[in-house]
Amino acid sequence: MIKTGIIGVTGYSGEELVDILLSHPEASLNCVTARVEKPIALSEMYPRFAKSTDVVCRALDVDAVAKECDVVFLALPHTISMGVSPRFLEKGVKVIDLSADYRLPAEVYEKWYKTDHLDKSNISRAVYGMPEINRSSIGKADLIANPGCYPTSVILGLLPIIKTVADAGLNVIVDSKSGTTGAGRKSSNPLIFSDVDENFKSYKANDHQHIPEMENVLSISAGSSVKVNFVPHLLPVRRGILSTIYLEHKGLPPAEELHKIYSDRYKDEPFVRVRPLGGDMPQLLETTGTNYCDIGIKVARGMVVIVSVIDNLVKGASGQAVQNMNIMFGLDEKSGLI
Amino acid sequence: MIKTGIIGVTGYSGEELVDILLSHPEASLNCVTARVEKPIALSEMYPRFAKSTDVVCRALDVDAVAKECDVVFLALPHTISMGVSPRFLEKGVKVIDLSADYRLPAEVYEKWYKTDHLDKSNISRAVYGMPEINRSSIGKADLIANPGCYPTSVILGLLPIIKTVADAGLNVIVDSKSGTTGAGRKSSNPLIFSDVDENFKSYKANDHQHIPEMENVLSISAGSSVKVNFVPHLLPVRRGILSTIYLEHKGLPPAEELHKIYSDRYKDEPFVRVRPLGGDMPQLLETTGTNYCDIGIKVARGMVVIVSVIDNLVKGASGQAVQNMNIMFGLDEKSGLI
Amino acid sequence: MIKTGIIGVTGYSGEELVDILLSHPEASLNCVTARVEKPIALSEMYPRFAKSTDVVCRALDVDAVAKECDVVFLALPHTISMGVSPRFLEKGVKVIDLSADYRLPAEVYEKWYKTDHLDKSNISRAVYGMPEINRSSIGKADLIANPGCYPTSVILGLLPIIKTVADAGLNVIVDSKSGTTGAGRKSSNPLIFSDVDENFKSYKANDHQHIPEMENVLSISAGSSVKVNFVPHLLPVRRGILSTIYLEHKGLPPAEELHKIYSDRYKDEPFVRVRPLGGDMPQLLETTGTNYCDIGIKVARGMVVIVSVIDNLVKGASGQAVQNMNIMFGLDEKSGLI
Amino acid sequence: MIKTGIIGVTGYSGEELVDILLSHPEASLNCVTARVEKPIALSEMYPRFAKSTDVVCRALDVDAVAKECDVVFLALPHTISMGVSPRFLEKGVKVIDLSADYRLPAEVYEKWYKTDHLDKSNISRAVYGMPEINRSSIGKADLIANPGCYPTSVILGLLPIIKTVADAGLNVIVDSKSGTTGAGRKSSNPLIFSDVDENFKSYKANDHQHIPEMENVLSISAGSSVKVNFVPHLLPVRRGILSTIYLEHKGLPPAEELHKIYSDRYKDEPFVRVRPLGGDMPQLLETTGTNYCDIGIKVARGMVVIVSVIDNLVKGASGQAVQNMNIMFGLDEKSGLI
Repeated sequence: MIKTGIIGVTGYSGEELVDILLSHPEASLNCVTARVEKPIALSEMYPRFAKSTDVVCRALDVDAVAKECDVVFLALPHTISMGVSPRFLEKGVKVIDLSADYRLPAEVYEKWYKTDHLDKSNISRAVYGMPEINRSSIGKADLIANPGCYPTSVILGLLPIIKTVADAGLNVIVDSKSGTTGAGRKSSNPLIFSDVDENFKSYKANDHQHIPEMENVLSISAGSSVKVNFVPHLLPVRRGILSTIYLEHKGLPPAEELHKIYSDRYKDEPFVRVRPLGGDMPQLLETTGTNYCDIGIKVARGMVVIVSVIDNLVKGASGQAVQNMNIMFGLDEKSGLI
Repeated sequence: MIKTGIIGVTGYSGEELVDILLSHPEASLNCVTARVEKPIALSEMYPRFAKSTDVVCRALDVDAVAKECDVVFLALPHTISMGVSPRFLEKGVKVIDLSADYRLPAEVYEKWYKTDHLDKSNISRAVYGMPEINRSSIGKADLIANPGCYPTSVILGLLPIIKTVADAGLNVIVDSKSGTTGAGRKSSNPLIFSDVDENFKSYKANDHQHIPEMENVLSISAGSSVKVNFVPHLLPVRRGILSTIYLEHKGLPPAEELHKIYSDRYKDEPFVRVRPLGGDMPQLLETTGTNYCDIGIKVARGMVVIVSVIDNLVKGASGQAVQNMNIMFGLDEKSGLI
Repeated sequence: MIKTGIIGVTGYSGEELVDILLSHPEASLNCVTARVEKPIALSEMYPRFAKSTDVVCRALDVDAVAKECDVVFLALPHTISMGVSPRFLEKGVKVIDLSADYRLPAEVYEKWYKTDHLDKSNISRAVYGMPEINRSSIGKADLIANPGCYPTSVILGLLPIIKTVADAGLNVIVDSKSGTTGAGRKSSNPLIFSDVDENFKSYKANDHQHIPEMENVLSISAGSSVKVNFVPHLLPVRRGILSTIYLEHKGLPPAEELHKIYSDRYKDEPFVRVRPLGGDMPQLLETTGTNYCDIGIKVARGMVVIVSVIDNLVKGASGQAVQNMNIMFGLDEKSGLI
Repeated sequence: MIKTGIIGVTGYSGEELVDILLSHPEASLNCVTARVEKPIALSEMYPRFAKSTDVVCRALDVDAVAKECDVVFLALPHTISMGVSPRFLEKGVKVIDLSADYRLPAEVYEKWYKTDHLDKSNISRAVYGMPEINRSSIGKADLIANPGCYPTSVILGLLPIIKTVADAGLNVIVDSKSGTTGAGRKSSNPLIFSDVDENFKSYKANDHQHIPEMENVLSISAGSSVKVNFVPHLLPVRRGILSTIYLEHKGLPPAEELHKIYSDRYKDEPFVRVRPLGGDMPQLLETTGTNYCDIGIKVARGMVVIVSVIDNLVKGASGQAVQNMNIMFGLDEKSGLI
């Protein structure tokens, strides 16, 4: 059994990690931490875990956690993770960081997150934890930068053809829609039910901090600089991201060939599914609660439309983190995941 | 008082017309019809109208309705309206048709709706009922083709700059999201709550029957052929359409100038509002229950993003229909509308 | 035109008052106030009111407001209203208070709201603003204690038979369900979308501060002390309250007679509707956006079940407040309301 | 590995069974059937199961299924199950029936379901599949009548004290609220999104076909006839049932003692949890996706209020069915369930 810990259990991705790890057949949940004044049973913080676990949530004590865990998941806010990660690495504990702190080159990070990076030396040590790109590096890594939710949906939606797209000089336009758990459990500026229900809005149009992550990963894959135009929207649902991607059908192969490129690329991927050509596009609910990314492709009237769907808390966060753990420890990659 | 009738009161736009007309200070609701076996009080069909009206819903009898009404609103399915409209026009009753039957040239209609047009001679008589374009023609018309919901949001979002866009040869991409009342009260293929709630999906990507309406109206306005790439999505809300429109910022004026073009174009329009530049984009709930179209503009990283929001049942259907009635009968254009 | 002001426009009932008053044919909205640092256009606070009003929201200045208004609506939190009301009354401005501050005898108020009452002398001056009980007193009043949302639904649901119920010594059980706007726009302890959507819960079981208001009003009507057992629940909807009321069918008349008592009692009431016996019970959406209270009655297997539905922001707050204003100023009671 | 089959996979409980069985460590899903014209991959019917299973859905062939399965789950409509069950039993295949067909004495069934019972001889053979009551009988059974969703929530909420309640002659009032999947995937009279969203309603007040099931089971437990007054309501959520149960606090022990009775009764139950006295009542989301029943108790102002919460598709249907399977085959009762 892999001994695991969750650092920062009060947010949605921390809670989701508990859900996944408690039923993982080859991992045990040994430690959970949060900013608590005194130890509190996890089942008291979250009544949904009563009778499922006796784990107690404590304030973070790196030494104590390091003794009990082979790997820790950092479900901490951006800028906090980079203060914690090196302390676990020093003690030989593997780290899977769900924040943005190790996903970008330092100067890009500092520009978009408007803060200094406090652990630059470990950025190059971190492997970007998208198994569909970096599986073998993940297997050898001790620090994983777990991908962001929007980037996961966008990168997987473009990956098989990004080189062709870049070579053809096509404009990439992505219109994404996310459920509210993607915004976290903010006490400042909360998403109030009366203001979200029956509502819908765009935000940070072409100005969102996940853009450099998409561009960085896709540019590496394309072998040249890729620009992504990206407008996120807030859906009145709890979970899920659906990204609609638009490309002009110029310099790209015909529909059947395009579809075959996707099918071939993801044929052996355990958690990416490509819909049959000519059928229904994937829907949000079809991935809810699962670690799958579902992709649909359509060519019509001179445009290529790609729809990519994930559950933002699973493939977009905690599920992908556990997928990375499975790879790091040589387990079946699907273990504990649906 | 203008004497009005609603032909087809069982759908959402028919119900919304009742709501608006019952509190209209210068119109009376004299007749409502539906496919009923025997007359039934409207307040029995819709308990929400109890104590608000004594009107009885009857099966359609054109002669009887024509005697009691100055104008009828046809809230009928496509292909049914064109069989009913000429019979009212013959009797001197003005017609505001909420279906698609008179919005397009016959050959375009027949191609997209896959049926013969049965009243071709009246197509040219019909005025496309978008006051922001055809106010003076509407004032003289006796047959109004009331615009579709998606087209209203898209056309108003592009109108001020469509000539410039067309002249610059820009690709127009529209990602629209609609509430479920836009799909009507279908008994076949209904939108079941368990399948819509917490869900989100695209449909008819770049293949929706509202595309020719948008292209037709925008092409006339641009003075040259405009192509609109359009992907609609289904939101888990009852009301509202939000369209996100993407244009490359090539051959278009800078942000401030672009914003001024919109502000000037709509300054005197009673039901179109342009948001201040640099502020929040409009949200769905901000137009719910109103006849407004709200428009926001942002230029970022080489893209122009335009967000256009309406309530699909008001400005996108019944509210715009009443706005047209007000113009046709010389009333204050805002009368009875909020 | 009655000149009106809204004191405290940042909450949901303040916003709803703007909505109603802006389209009221016999009232003008002259002043709105809130805790703002400097004057701000109401249309800037609420983009949904752009192009509908030029009113500017200012910090409260009683003298300035008193000069411009015949009546003010206090949409303030409990305990704040009682500090403001007397200052308007002194200047001859009528006050309609939407808080709980004048609804209860001082000692009951102090017990349930756990605070001293600062304006005891005006409690007896206040008329409880439920037109179905106090219409003539309201017509002469200058201080109205506008009813709470839950009490409105419960009192109207029991009023016609409460004396019989009390005389028969029956236990009264009320299971109420409310939309989230009933909880206001709290910055502390907000109702976060991710925690309310797809959720449902009870709270303050038989311990809610609206209980004494129900008991007080019903006891006066019954002529003896009435106890109400009341458990509220939070619905994942924005608006509406549905109360299910349970009474044993002992000492009460048979179903037809019971129904006739309700129908007769509310026959001439403009905003209370009783459903036909044997038909569907009223639903939340059927009163949404209206000032109606809908009531259904069923007797089955020895129980009387009464369902009472209102929109918490309209009949449960701002709509009833305007109904009271209409009565106070001799207008048509339905003016400006639907 | 227990070889299982699902008869009737097109409904929500059939789909949920697939979800549970695919990740069950000691069971395999060998057969699924539905009214299909030709065999179709389950992953084609439900894209959410792509890459998770290769099972093919076929029209029902009892012989073929019997050869491949140790146990079948009948997720069929009422009245259909009783035609299918005996055919499997004859072939030695164990049957877990999720319909109401074997839950009631024949004459009670025929009265409430208004149809003849076609397999009366097997009614006494069937064991009512609530492990908290019949665990040892379930272990020996070959035909399980899996409990209804509402009855599961109500029976577990009352079980520990029903004898005391009956002996004290107390009136039992239950106000239940259910998500929409409880109504199934009806093609006739579907629950349309536009009519359910933002809505809430009661139905079948004290006249619902689940009443005799509750009364039957509770009467057996009490040792005397129990009457349950029951009003169900429809929540605008997909999953979950919350029942609020009202009892006068007469002849019942004080709060602490009452709470201890519940805690003791359910201490060793793997899937029933009792909340601490004085804490928050359970909420719908806290059991969503789990097989738990959560119970909260409060005594206030002379009333006992009990709140009982389940996921209607898990503990209220498919999860409890798998719990029964685990018991029947001697597996760990929690196997494959969370």
